[in-house]
Amino acid sequence: MMLSLNQMTTRAWDVPELLTRCAAAGVTSVGLWREPVLEYGLGATVARLDELGIGVSTLCRAGFFPVGDDVAAAKSQRENRAAIDEAAALDAGALVLLGGGLPPGSRDLDGARVAVARGIEQLLPYAAERGVRLGLEPLHPALCADRGVISTLHQALDVVERFPVPDVGVVVDAFHVWWDPQLWDAIARAGDRIFAVQLADHPVTLQDPLNGRLLPGEGVIDLRRFVHAVRAAGYRGAVEVEVFSTHHWSRPPEDVLAEVVCRTVSFLEEVS
Amino acid sequence: MMLSLNQMTTRAWDVPELLTRCAAAGVTSVGLWREPVLEYGLGATVARLDELGIGVSTLCRAGFFPVGDDVAAAKSQRENRAAIDEAAALDAGALVLLGGGLPPGSRDLDGARVAVARGIEQLLPYAAERGVRLGLEPLHPALCADRGVISTLHQALDVVERFPVPDVGVVVDAFHVWWDPQLWDAIARAGDRIFAVQLADHPVTLQDPLNGRLLPGEGVIDLRRFVHAVRAAGYRGAVEVEVFSTHHWSRPPEDVLAEVVCRTVSFLEEVS
Repeated sequence: MMLSLNQMTTRAWDVPELLTRCAAAGVTSVGLWREPVLEYGLGATVARLDELGIGVSTLCRAGFFPVGDDVAAAKSQRENRAAIDEAAALDAGALVLLGGGLPPGSRDLDGARVAVARGIEQLLPYAAERGVRLGLEPLHPALCADRGVISTLHQALDVVERFPVPDVGVVVDAFHVWWDPQLWDAIARAGDRIFAVQLADHPVTLQDPLNGRLLPGEGVIDLRRFVHAVRAAGYRGAVEVEVFSTHHWSRPPEDVLAEVVCRTVSFLEEVS
Repeated sequence: MMLSLNQMTTRAWDVPELLTRCAAAGVTSVGLWREPVLEYGLGATVARLDELGIGVSTLCRAGFFPVGDDVAAAKSQRENRAAIDEAAALDAGALVLLGGGLPPGSRDLDGARVAVARGIEQLLPYAAERGVRLGLEPLHPALCADRGVISTLHQALDVVERFPVPDVGVVVDAFHVWWDPQLWDAIARAGDRIFAVQLADHPVTLQDPLNGRLLPGEGVIDLRRFVHAVRAAGYRGAVEVEVFSTHHWSRPPEDVLAEVVCRTVSFLEEVS
């Protein structure tokens, strides 16, 4: 399977440096984030991608569907439509949707979860017209309250299966779901709903659920089994390495990229 | 329902101070930890509990079943039997069992999970002879790798339902399970397997999964709904407040106890 580098892993690099470095390292797919893409320019990014022959596995990120706040909901919809336009221009494999957290002061987790399905329903026509695939990403339960109320892959599938298969699917990041006793069943169920796959590893003791993640192979997740499972479910796209890590961000990004390649090449190559 | 104070919430107090303070505050049930009980003395603790008319909702903690290491397994069994003896002497409502984390260097999460069921099976006769109820506690997924591979209430029930109902059940801590989309079904399923109930709240942003918990009402969990749900499932025991919190540990414990009583009395009283 093909390696993709999510730019969060080497976030000190701007888009042109990221793309040049990836091309030099033989990495022909990237996961991009909206803010650095807009900083460099959407057109310039597209041109540079074409020039170097690099594809975009995901654009991060949209979603965050507010509840009970019309102004916030309108703003969210504008942002989400802009993200869809950008994903279309970049020909991204998926636009990553996060469920968003609880509204300020709320304890209504069920309500926030219902809002995710409603939000996707509202966004879907705009995305489908532009050929953009929406990928709902379940987040680790430690991030439930502040950024992602969709906590398991089965739960994400319960949402996305209401919508047509080519338009709405899931993004599966090993860090977020590795602990789930139902993970392997859920991956098999996901099948062609898997629009993107991300890897990050988990330390023995998770001191920082947001930025304490590890490079593949540094931690406790059986990532080889994970990659084989998504392939067995039918996924044939690139496998992104996306590592939020205060530690690795403090290193020279070129060292991190070299280590990502070294750590993943063996088990990605064994999965055809 | 009756409030119980888990001594971890006010951990600066030794056992005699905890018991005296609880009695003075009208709190007639406590959750105890093995280490401070042994420090004060098991017999002295039992005598003081009797004198003050205080019951023990849980003794924390046992479990931690090693995999593939005979020396560690033998040590774990000795410790677990000692914990059972202590729970019997204290007439604890349940001995809290944690699944334990992954063995050092292991990525075999399935194997570690199988070992929990096997460990309980081995421990059960010794516990049953002494009338000690074993309560398996699912832990938050953020704690999966280093201390508790049982991550959801349904998963804990899959394990404990293999054993007779009066002997093996679950301990349900709101902090660990609040995010679970299947929580309410799992609580209803648990029924008379619920041996103990614990409360701690969750901040919007969880910066420290181990010691960043909040007092009931300070956070995002709908604890009122949680308490009603365990009561509807048939639970009639005490409701423990167990808060691992670097912040609250830095405060005078008498203030924390007063706040625990104040924050829980209203919604515990409304559940008969």
